[in-house]
Amino acid sequence: MFFASDNTGPVPQQVLDALAEVNTGYQSGYGADDYTQKAADMVRDVFEAPEAAVYFVATGTAANSLALACYSNPWDTIFCSPVAHIHEDECNAPEFYSNAKLTLVGDSDKIDPDALRRAILNEEIRGVHGPQRGPVSITQITEKGRAYSLDEIKAVCDVAKEFGLPVHLDGARFANAIQHLGCTPAEMSWKAGVDVVSFGGTKNGLMGVEAVVFFDKAKAWEFELRRKRGAHLFSKHRYLAAQMIGFLRDGLWLDLAQKANERGAQLAQHIRDIPQTELMYEPAANLLFFKMPRYLHRLVMAEGAVYYPWEDLDVGNDDDMVIGRLVCDWSSDAADIDRFAETIQRFAK
Amino acid sequence: MFFASDNTGPVPQQVLDALAEVNTGYQSGYGADDYTQKAADMVRDVFEAPEAAVYFVATGTAANSLALACYSNPWDTIFCSPVAHIHEDECNAPEFYSNAKLTLVGDSDKIDPDALRRAILNEEIRGVHGPQRGPVSITQITEKGRAYSLDEIKAVCDVAKEFGLPVHLDGARFANAIQHLGCTPAEMSWKAGVDVVSFGGTKNGLMGVEAVVFFDKAKAWEFELRRKRGAHLFSKHRYLAAQMIGFLRDGLWLDLAQKANERGAQLAQHIRDIPQTELMYEPAANLLFFKMPRYLHRLVMAEGAVYYPWEDLDVGNDDDMVIGRLVCDWSSDAADIDRFAETIQRFAK
Amino acid sequence: MFFASDNTGPVPQQVLDALAEVNTGYQSGYGADDYTQKAADMVRDVFEAPEAAVYFVATGTAANSLALACYSNPWDTIFCSPVAHIHEDECNAPEFYSNAKLTLVGDSDKIDPDALRRAILNEEIRGVHGPQRGPVSITQITEKGRAYSLDEIKAVCDVAKEFGLPVHLDGARFANAIQHLGCTPAEMSWKAGVDVVSFGGTKNGLMGVEAVVFFDKAKAWEFELRRKRGAHLFSKHRYLAAQMIGFLRDGLWLDLAQKANERGAQLAQHIRDIPQTELMYEPAANLLFFKMPRYLHRLVMAEGAVYYPWEDLDVGNDDDMVIGRLVCDWSSDAADIDRFAETIQRFAK
Amino acid sequence: MFFASDNTGPVPQQVLDALAEVNTGYQSGYGADDYTQKAADMVRDVFEAPEAAVYFVATGTAANSLALACYSNPWDTIFCSPVAHIHEDECNAPEFYSNAKLTLVGDSDKIDPDALRRAILNEEIRGVHGPQRGPVSITQITEKGRAYSLDEIKAVCDVAKEFGLPVHLDGARFANAIQHLGCTPAEMSWKAGVDVVSFGGTKNGLMGVEAVVFFDKAKAWEFELRRKRGAHLFSKHRYLAAQMIGFLRDGLWLDLAQKANERGAQLAQHIRDIPQTELMYEPAANLLFFKMPRYLHRLVMAEGAVYYPWEDLDVGNDDDMVIGRLVCDWSSDAADIDRFAETIQRFAK
Repeated sequence: MFFASDNTGPVPQQVLDALAEVNTGYQSGYGADDYTQKAADMVRDVFEAPEAAVYFVATGTAANSLALACYSNPWDTIFCSPVAHIHEDECNAPEFYSNAKLTLVGDSDKIDPDALRRAILNEEIRGVHGPQRGPVSITQITEKGRAYSLDEIKAVCDVAKEFGLPVHLDGARFANAIQHLGCTPAEMSWKAGVDVVSFGGTKNGLMGVEAVVFFDKAKAWEFELRRKRGAHLFSKHRYLAAQMIGFLRDGLWLDLAQKANERGAQLAQHIRDIPQTELMYEPAANLLFFKMPRYLHRLVMAEGAVYYPWEDLDVGNDDDMVIGRLVCDWSSDAADIDRFAETIQRFAK
Repeated sequence: MFFASDNTGPVPQQVLDALAEVNTGYQSGYGADDYTQKAADMVRDVFEAPEAAVYFVATGTAANSLALACYSNPWDTIFCSPVAHIHEDECNAPEFYSNAKLTLVGDSDKIDPDALRRAILNEEIRGVHGPQRGPVSITQITEKGRAYSLDEIKAVCDVAKEFGLPVHLDGARFANAIQHLGCTPAEMSWKAGVDVVSFGGTKNGLMGVEAVVFFDKAKAWEFELRRKRGAHLFSKHRYLAAQMIGFLRDGLWLDLAQKANERGAQLAQHIRDIPQTELMYEPAANLLFFKMPRYLHRLVMAEGAVYYPWEDLDVGNDDDMVIGRLVCDWSSDAADIDRFAETIQRFAK
Repeated sequence: MFFASDNTGPVPQQVLDALAEVNTGYQSGYGADDYTQKAADMVRDVFEAPEAAVYFVATGTAANSLALACYSNPWDTIFCSPVAHIHEDECNAPEFYSNAKLTLVGDSDKIDPDALRRAILNEEIRGVHGPQRGPVSITQITEKGRAYSLDEIKAVCDVAKEFGLPVHLDGARFANAIQHLGCTPAEMSWKAGVDVVSFGGTKNGLMGVEAVVFFDKAKAWEFELRRKRGAHLFSKHRYLAAQMIGFLRDGLWLDLAQKANERGAQLAQHIRDIPQTELMYEPAANLLFFKMPRYLHRLVMAEGAVYYPWEDLDVGNDDDMVIGRLVCDWSSDAADIDRFAETIQRFAK
Repeated sequence: MFFASDNTGPVPQQVLDALAEVNTGYQSGYGADDYTQKAADMVRDVFEAPEAAVYFVATGTAANSLALACYSNPWDTIFCSPVAHIHEDECNAPEFYSNAKLTLVGDSDKIDPDALRRAILNEEIRGVHGPQRGPVSITQITEKGRAYSLDEIKAVCDVAKEFGLPVHLDGARFANAIQHLGCTPAEMSWKAGVDVVSFGGTKNGLMGVEAVVFFDKAKAWEFELRRKRGAHLFSKHRYLAAQMIGFLRDGLWLDLAQKANERGAQLAQHIRDIPQTELMYEPAANLLFFKMPRYLHRLVMAEGAVYYPWEDLDVGNDDDMVIGRLVCDWSSDAADIDRFAETIQRFAK
């Protein structure tokens, strides 16, 4: 009953196999090896973007921070949701890399185009005194487990383009969104107006690899310098590349996401079915937030369930509720999910 | 005939095995897993430092930059050799993380204690106008392939302590130095006065893991915040830990370094024996610089030898020389080294 | 009819006289002159804080940014109002100097203690992943022209102290607040729990001098280094000091603020009296926001009135309104204010 | 007998008069006033550069740091002399503003073109690993009191242009150099290949004003944003402008420099004439370094002479020498200088 995160499970055997495959003989360091070239080509194929500049780093925070830094000046502000990972979960890394600040748009996990326009219009009205308009960053799957539709992404990008601002997509759960929407990576990125994607591998089964995909090569050299200056350039780069090769080969990345999404859907159905539990948002993938009475939360935790209590809604009586976050991954076990539901039901008054 | 770097060979099977061993079941993310704890304990054992704070990052530049940042103020200067990796090869990463500047001490790869004292005395004479005295950083094995003796390390640390300055040791080739000196890790670090070590794994056979070892825990929490802010905190931390476990288990790390050193010694002997080639420094481990006529360099390169030409000494006639850098690693082949020597001899006039 | 800002008028003759007084003979540079010592003593007297560390800089943004940087780590967040000058009007300077980010508390110019407690509690719940709790910054007179009461300041400070967080007071209009509240500088600062004050001179009649007053000397040396590193240390420091001496001598600073406040009150009374205009907030000093029909705004502007249109409330018909900001200073002319009111009335339908 | 610096004397009456002249009525803030426009035009006239972008800041460190930041990337290195003010006397401000590092060229106060070429060629040979080539910065009058000839400046600029690198001139003592060389400001700057000048006012008689002059306007907006973000934008900008107007009007700035240079020459002649004292460099202006026996230094200091002892040459016997720095300014008194010389002679054995 482990639902803490999609970074707590093992990696699929194919990833280990891919490491073993490249583990022979001499290869140039720092990304000049054969496998890095191959992995980048595979990413370009996946995105139908033969001209894209593709880089690999080991953490999602590095991917987001470096990508945003390439599109920001130190006097800019980056537009994002108030629950964006870059705002809440990266300990000032985006600010560290970009020197820009963040402007929180609206009050939802999904940026509303009108709220974005208002936020953009509210900057640069003070000339040199206030921050200048910088890039827009959205997260797909959002931090609340929902998905932007293609139209919604396009609408956000359209507003950004109206002001000449670039758009970054934090795709830590990019594959889960692709499986949910049934669209292509190109449709969910450059065809909708996105300029740079953090294409997540780690939450979807890799040990630690994210690709940064620039659809316009203009930022390529700057990225390389920023990556090295940020200490994110791997010398034995083949081992990042190998993971990505194993991930993209034979559609493994989509299978992994599909499995995670299915387990997420199974879990969501239980939450809907149990009278004492309630979904906070309609989940699109493998990440969901639910509400349950605090007494129940405690009993279930005591039985060994593992998930993050996100918020404690203290109403001062028995109706006290806890909001919890549940995450599945490709290795989540269907029987385990059923057991979790049964555990809740067993204790529910 | 590949001598470009110690990051261009494969990793030993034991490292892959160690990854496979940990690749099962649930483990908490971000270093709260069982294996990270175990790996840190093993490092503490290696250093006979049960109170040390131990962290794992994926690149040497991250290890150096984060370690130095924990001991620097933005108005400080860090004392290092003019050929220090932190000065020449990290694209301003130490400055990015610490905001400090670097003061180059003397003109050698090994910091001379008297030159260090002069350099330290030359700072803070301008009060608030000049940079303030910050940490001292030394590299063992040095960037020129030599080793500080234990007495030499102690002499540098003594000068630093005279002024209350901390000492950082860039141990990218720490194991090679241990094998060369025949001393213990404790003797080469805290017993000599070193405060924090970048304990290298990558150049000695790992895919990409370095330990940062603080002998005083006071900097532990700051390091954790700086690591996250720098985007260097791995979510699936078990895969960093596993590599380190495989590395330290059964003394593998020392065996790997021993092999690399032996190949380095074999190579050095050839260079000494061939009349047309000459060692630039007396090598202590797996890294050596040599001089040979330019015509010979070109012919050998054309035969497929791979190494870095470090400097071209243009004297305007047939005596033009090239300085090259040769590096072996644990996987270097003895027969290949002999073939390299034979190739040189074959073309030598 | 100039109400654009309190930095658009001349300085009082006493300030020029004070410059002339010190303009003789040799004085050590960089604040080691006699006048700087004297000016700092005068500030300490004003604040009844004989142990305070007092520094002079030339801009309010420098005072705020340097003061906050001394109390922040790069991984912290600074708590402030969403309309704080440090957030809206300093082009990322506080972030540049501190490397911290800003957390906007509540939706008012005055920080509500409960909202502050919730905002503080909402940080550090994610361990190393989110920003850490940093200083609290309030502005007195607020950016909306209102004043915190002494009890309100104390309540904010109490919450900060509950969590061990320092409090910064942006006192760009400190004197105006003192005159409004009829209290002492000590009561409005350290006696209420404030740790460091940006004590404004520029908006109150100086050419460009602000004092940073640390009630605890522990940050003194760090401030000096940060000031120099920020390029804010004046070599001919006597000319900053002289202005402050002229300002504090014979209570000039209070007289200037009193005049500005009186003109503000006169202006506010007009706004209240004219049916077509309305105050947005109850003004406490020399700064006020008012609403008037857009047609009226345009006619008045065309007559030569100068003030900032702050917001345009477009309701799509004749009821469209404009919010404007009016600021008086010591040199504002009573007759001019009456003429402004008459101008409005003349055009009002 | 005060020779500590050219920032320790008073300012000429014309500067105070200029402040009084502008001290009337309403003027827009932040540089949008009439006087700033006028002062910028006067600077453009002085430099025969009608298209130049001209800005005023209050400290030389701000001028240098902001100018260099506009021409640097965070991964660059700035080429300068090892005794450059930006390296030795600005407490890491240039690094703070630019994020770049500094590469020290040669071992002289005047950059040698060949040494510069070697230093430039030595960067970017490591691709992404080392810092990238950034701007070249020279100081005129140098920190050792000497002047580059126009040909020497041109030779440095030519090397920079060879590599497409911009050139910054730290002109803290620009006027002194103009008087020494007898050339025009244009000849000593853009006609020689300089891209941006820190045109000093403070050391030559102003309270605290430096102009930053960009001969190419492309950097203008970036400078404005960096200036505000650095907290160097004055609200009551007219008082900076007024000083510059008073300074440039009727050639006052040249008269002041001429006086300072004449006093410097007088002082130098004494040093040459006294057998026990010796000039370290041939001085070009108002700044000179001299050597004298330590016993003599102590006796002269005890008589009230004020200057900086720069270095103590301890040879372990009566021949111990002290190197001292002497600086004159426009207000230095000829009789005082003679008295200083007489004092030395009186004590000399």
